[in-house]
Amino acid sequence: MTLLEKAKLAKHAATQMVTLTTEEKNQALLAMADALTSNIARILEANKKDVEAAKQAGVTNALIDRLSLSEGRIRDMAEGLRQVVELGDPVGKELEAWERPNGLRITKVRVPLGVIGMIYEARPNVTVDATGLCLKAGNAVLLRGSSSALHSNQILVQILREALATTKVSKEAVQLLEEGTREEVNKMLKMNDYLDVLIPRGGAGLIRSVVDNASVPVLETGAGNCHVYVDESAKPDMARDIVVNAKTHRPAVCNAAETLLVHEAWAEKHLSDLLRALKEKGVELRGCERTRELAKDIDIVPATEEDWSTEYLDYTMAVAVVDSVDSAIEHINRYSTKHSESIVTESKENARNFQKRVDSAAVYHNASTRFTDGFEFGFGAEIGISTQKLHARGPMGLEALTSSKYVIYGTGQIR
Amino acid sequence: MTLLEKAKLAKHAATQMVTLTTEEKNQALLAMADALTSNIARILEANKKDVEAAKQAGVTNALIDRLSLSEGRIRDMAEGLRQVVELGDPVGKELEAWERPNGLRITKVRVPLGVIGMIYEARPNVTVDATGLCLKAGNAVLLRGSSSALHSNQILVQILREALATTKVSKEAVQLLEEGTREEVNKMLKMNDYLDVLIPRGGAGLIRSVVDNASVPVLETGAGNCHVYVDESAKPDMARDIVVNAKTHRPAVCNAAETLLVHEAWAEKHLSDLLRALKEKGVELRGCERTRELAKDIDIVPATEEDWSTEYLDYTMAVAVVDSVDSAIEHINRYSTKHSESIVTESKENARNFQKRVDSAAVYHNASTRFTDGFEFGFGAEIGISTQKLHARGPMGLEALTSSKYVIYGTGQIR
Repeated sequence: MTLLEKAKLAKHAATQMVTLTTEEKNQALLAMADALTSNIARILEANKKDVEAAKQAGVTNALIDRLSLSEGRIRDMAEGLRQVVELGDPVGKELEAWERPNGLRITKVRVPLGVIGMIYEARPNVTVDATGLCLKAGNAVLLRGSSSALHSNQILVQILREALATTKVSKEAVQLLEEGTREEVNKMLKMNDYLDVLIPRGGAGLIRSVVDNASVPVLETGAGNCHVYVDESAKPDMARDIVVNAKTHRPAVCNAAETLLVHEAWAEKHLSDLLRALKEKGVELRGCERTRELAKDIDIVPATEEDWSTEYLDYTMAVAVVDSVDSAIEHINRYSTKHSESIVTESKENARNFQKRVDSAAVYHNASTRFTDGFEFGFGAEIGISTQKLHARGPMGLEALTSSKYVIYGTGQIR
Repeated sequence: MTLLEKAKLAKHAATQMVTLTTEEKNQALLAMADALTSNIARILEANKKDVEAAKQAGVTNALIDRLSLSEGRIRDMAEGLRQVVELGDPVGKELEAWERPNGLRITKVRVPLGVIGMIYEARPNVTVDATGLCLKAGNAVLLRGSSSALHSNQILVQILREALATTKVSKEAVQLLEEGTREEVNKMLKMNDYLDVLIPRGGAGLIRSVVDNASVPVLETGAGNCHVYVDESAKPDMARDIVVNAKTHRPAVCNAAETLLVHEAWAEKHLSDLLRALKEKGVELRGCERTRELAKDIDIVPATEEDWSTEYLDYTMAVAVVDSVDSAIEHINRYSTKHSESIVTESKENARNFQKRVDSAAVYHNASTRFTDGFEFGFGAEIGISTQKLHARGPMGLEALTSSKYVIYGTGQIR
């Protein structure tokens, strides 16, 4: 089947899904979860083909790990679907309602977005996670995973569709693109008549390419050049705990900190201790001139301009000494990817100024940036973390996968 | 000054505007309104140059009318700014707040979008209207009007900036692009580092071109191929009043109806009367085969496939007879631009089915489509009517010009 045929089937399925009840959608999610755990052997067999091909192609161990499924990982995917059942259904909620002097009653109602295009990289679990969230919010989904995971994605989608065939959700609501060509993605980016939104999930290069080339609206996710700023009045122990946690708790994720900014007065007293704590965790430091002067006893690589805008996703951190909270704000607004930033300070005034003027999705006072996450916020599973300012910002749960419409009740009103 | 320099100034101004109070923004709006009414002669003089050049270029009278300013129109623009003062300030509002088990207090706060790029056609009043709404929501604005209105836009922006210089809002928050080249627009469409959103205002061609070529997120506005569906049980008088109003009250605007769908059982009894009423208002009819059979006494041009997707913006209407409310829904979801649609019926069940399944921004039961409008909804001035499903749908007031961010209060929490 061609991309266009699949897109048409998805769009048609989406128009039927607006009438489904929450119960009907939940039954579909549970059927999919059961089908995954009943078919572990089939899934592992298909996954083995992808993993072996990747090994022969000599890709990195990290990529092999992302690609590999195990019985435990498959059970986790099924469990993820069961957790989505527990989430409240956003669709159908009346958001606002009012009556006009002419008697028209206007209501604003939450509705599904329609058809969501997912473009993602090697992890096959995205196939299942994204499908669960999209369906629960009443949407159809067009999936385009990495060609390196094609066998895994094919078997997963086949199993999900077999399960849907026994439910009120049409199996055509889940479509997998299988061509694996660059051209296929390029066509998908321009399908404004069939796709309501594109969500890219993966590295900065993938996301940039989708944003630059799509005419379909994009929800930009992920890239996190996050900062921690240690202010003049910060408590040394709290600053150390937050910085070390934000950098080293899980360096490869988007809410990990990449740059440390320190007020000069605090730095004079405590910078060496703080940097030593990072060094002990194995962090390579890249510092500005002032940082290297104030912590002469510590091995610090000179930072280049490029360091300030780099998302290392690794045990590396850039460090700059600044002369005020305003300088910290300016540095962040210049280099940040607008994901998550934190100020450590005992000054409420400086904290409020920082939180107001830093232009990022999540701005913390005295806490680690690592909390920007759907589960940590209490939303449950997320489809990604939006770093743009339209539609949704920060962790995107089910609501981000919906739109609204005005439903208006009249008795013959004309103008 | 280059486009890039102007964009940088606007971005810098935007970072300062987040700290403004409502009162400071309102004072700026009032200063701009006063400046317009104090400079009527200067404005008219500049406008005369544009109008004369347009006349010499032999453009249509409709275009000359859109381009022309008068003392009355300038006073209307000033009055528009004063009305924006009366609108509530969306910025700073705490939308949600909750505490996590670890003691983190998470709040979601409404914030300005940042820098808004407006791309529009001949009407110089958009320069003032858009500036007023953008500033009130705490944003800077980069304006790119038609080159045919350049003298008018230059004097208007000069006057607005002179007025801002006496207030707390930086005059750099309002920037006009003056090069007038296609290249200038193309560059603007790709300025993701400086622009948070683009809003095109104008004809379908302009909007399509912006959507297709921009990498900056776009708020799609305007195009309205709106439908009225007259169901089997519709009251004949109500149906006639609504259809005639939706088509002829103001045919050139986006919420005017373009296609009439009629249930076959109703059509057999009442179609001729309804079409005669349209004819009496000077409407040219383009009908399907069934329409022409059922209203043999009336002059109806055979409709082509193209008619179903045409936004005439004129005294022309396409007419189709359908066999059920489901067929009407399918026709609309296939051809509509997702703006406004109405069902006329005495059946609540059919009305609810139609309102649930028709995928448009505003779906009416027993009322004219002409009510989709910021003032008619009670919002006040609007920046446009969104026909997309991300971020904002339907009439866009001040809230559509804002985003949100998470402001999070901790006491040293780490993961």
